[in-house]
Amino acid sequence: MRYVLKVAYDGTDFCGWQIQPNGPSVQQTLADAAFCAFGERVTFTASGRTDSGVHAAAQVCHADILAAVPPERLADALNCHLPQSVSVLASAAAPAGFDANRSAKRKTYVYRMYCSPRRNPLKDRYSLHIKGVIDISAMQRAGDMFVGEHDFKAYCASRSQVKTTVRTVYFVRVSRDGEDVCVRVCGSGFLYNMVRTMAGTMLWYACGKTDENDIAASLESGSRSLAGKTLPARGLMLESVDYGLELFGG
Amino acid sequence: MRYVLKVAYDGTDFCGWQIQPNGPSVQQTLADAAFCAFGERVTFTASGRTDSGVHAAAQVCHADILAAVPPERLADALNCHLPQSVSVLASAAAPAGFDANRSAKRKTYVYRMYCSPRRNPLKDRYSLHIKGVIDISAMQRAGDMFVGEHDFKAYCASRSQVKTTVRTVYFVRVSRDGEDVCVRVCGSGFLYNMVRTMAGTMLWYACGKTDENDIAASLESGSRSLAGKTLPARGLMLESVDYGLELFGG
Repeated sequence: MRYVLKVAYDGTDFCGWQIQPNGPSVQQTLADAAFCAFGERVTFTASGRTDSGVHAAAQVCHADILAAVPPERLADALNCHLPQSVSVLASAAAPAGFDANRSAKRKTYVYRMYCSPRRNPLKDRYSLHIKGVIDISAMQRAGDMFVGEHDFKAYCASRSQVKTTVRTVYFVRVSRDGEDVCVRVCGSGFLYNMVRTMAGTMLWYACGKTDENDIAASLESGSRSLAGKTLPARGLMLESVDYGLELFGG
Repeated sequence: MRYVLKVAYDGTDFCGWQIQPNGPSVQQTLADAAFCAFGERVTFTASGRTDSGVHAAAQVCHADILAAVPPERLADALNCHLPQSVSVLASAAAPAGFDANRSAKRKTYVYRMYCSPRRNPLKDRYSLHIKGVIDISAMQRAGDMFVGEHDFKAYCASRSQVKTTVRTVYFVRVSRDGEDVCVRVCGSGFLYNMVRTMAGTMLWYACGKTDENDIAASLESGSRSLAGKTLPARGLMLESVDYGLELFGG
């Protein structure tokens, strides 16, 4: 039977979602928990990978499990065997034909920064320290240039191997909450490092280090050197994945 | 010359503010940074100790330093040598006769909880998971019983050695922010474990595990068994220390 799960994780000590030879992954951690709970080797397939150090408030994944677990109880069965850094928030029977990766329609990521003269150890784990003040309307103007269907080749780590670098961004919203600035990006899917490089480019624009022409040219030409710096992973969180249907019964 | 500093720290990996034989302390970490920066053995005296695992958004401490450092630059001079878990947010010349411990007038702590059917790894570091729903007006009613001058002997770990267990609580405020519940307690000073035991008693009251009579009796008799459970350190944060004057120049 196929199950669907909503999973939160603190990515700090993971090499990312996907199983890697060089460090602990969220995917392996879930597989280990399933093996402890059911004595079965289970593969968890997510909506998409998250990179090393990136957090998730609500990653969605599916798994085919032989053991007859009541769907809503799968979450607790796995949580018993998960470390503090991972938690299954909800579980359900997957709808017919559901695939967490292929059925995903929209993903929303948040990149969080905080503006403060000095570093704050209580914020560093989940957001990026910016010493100066951020002009959020300038950030928003740069963000608006990414909305729509574009070739995001310039916003993608060179080592990524994908068929196409064309993606659709549905919205980019910059908001302020006290000294925190959030960049929320919703799209059909994202390339490796794409949100972090978009956020870095928006920040450069707000600081006057790049302009509209360079951003437009980066989308036209795909030249990585025209895009801004890729920001550190710790500020990034996968906030939600939208499948166009209610997976976890309200 | 005496300096005053505002310090933030993530208490997770510290055995508390005060130098201890059994683990790293914030006080020692600051002393090590001062030794690296100035080659001097410096003692940092805080407004009060924080326990093992307790966080601080704005602890205040003073230090007498021989090196002639421009007061506002002391923060950065120390920050160069501090680990990610500690940051000096501000520094200034201490006013005449200032002592971070003896001059402190009011301290405000926040105990943070989140209500969710399942654990959230992105919140666990700084707040306590509560499975059920919290009745915050009941929490507030219990909290109001602590306001005023009372003997808080029942709210104090037995191993603490103090001259008097009488303290004044100025206010207890319970607020909700989404699934988070904050208990903010302001007082003249606090005993070892006092805020965590107050918050635990308020939670017990809201769950119907204790009543007004028991709470009143705990304050009358000083009997520890009448007070509620001491909640875990990780939900607690020293939010501010008030000296009745502006220490860091607005």
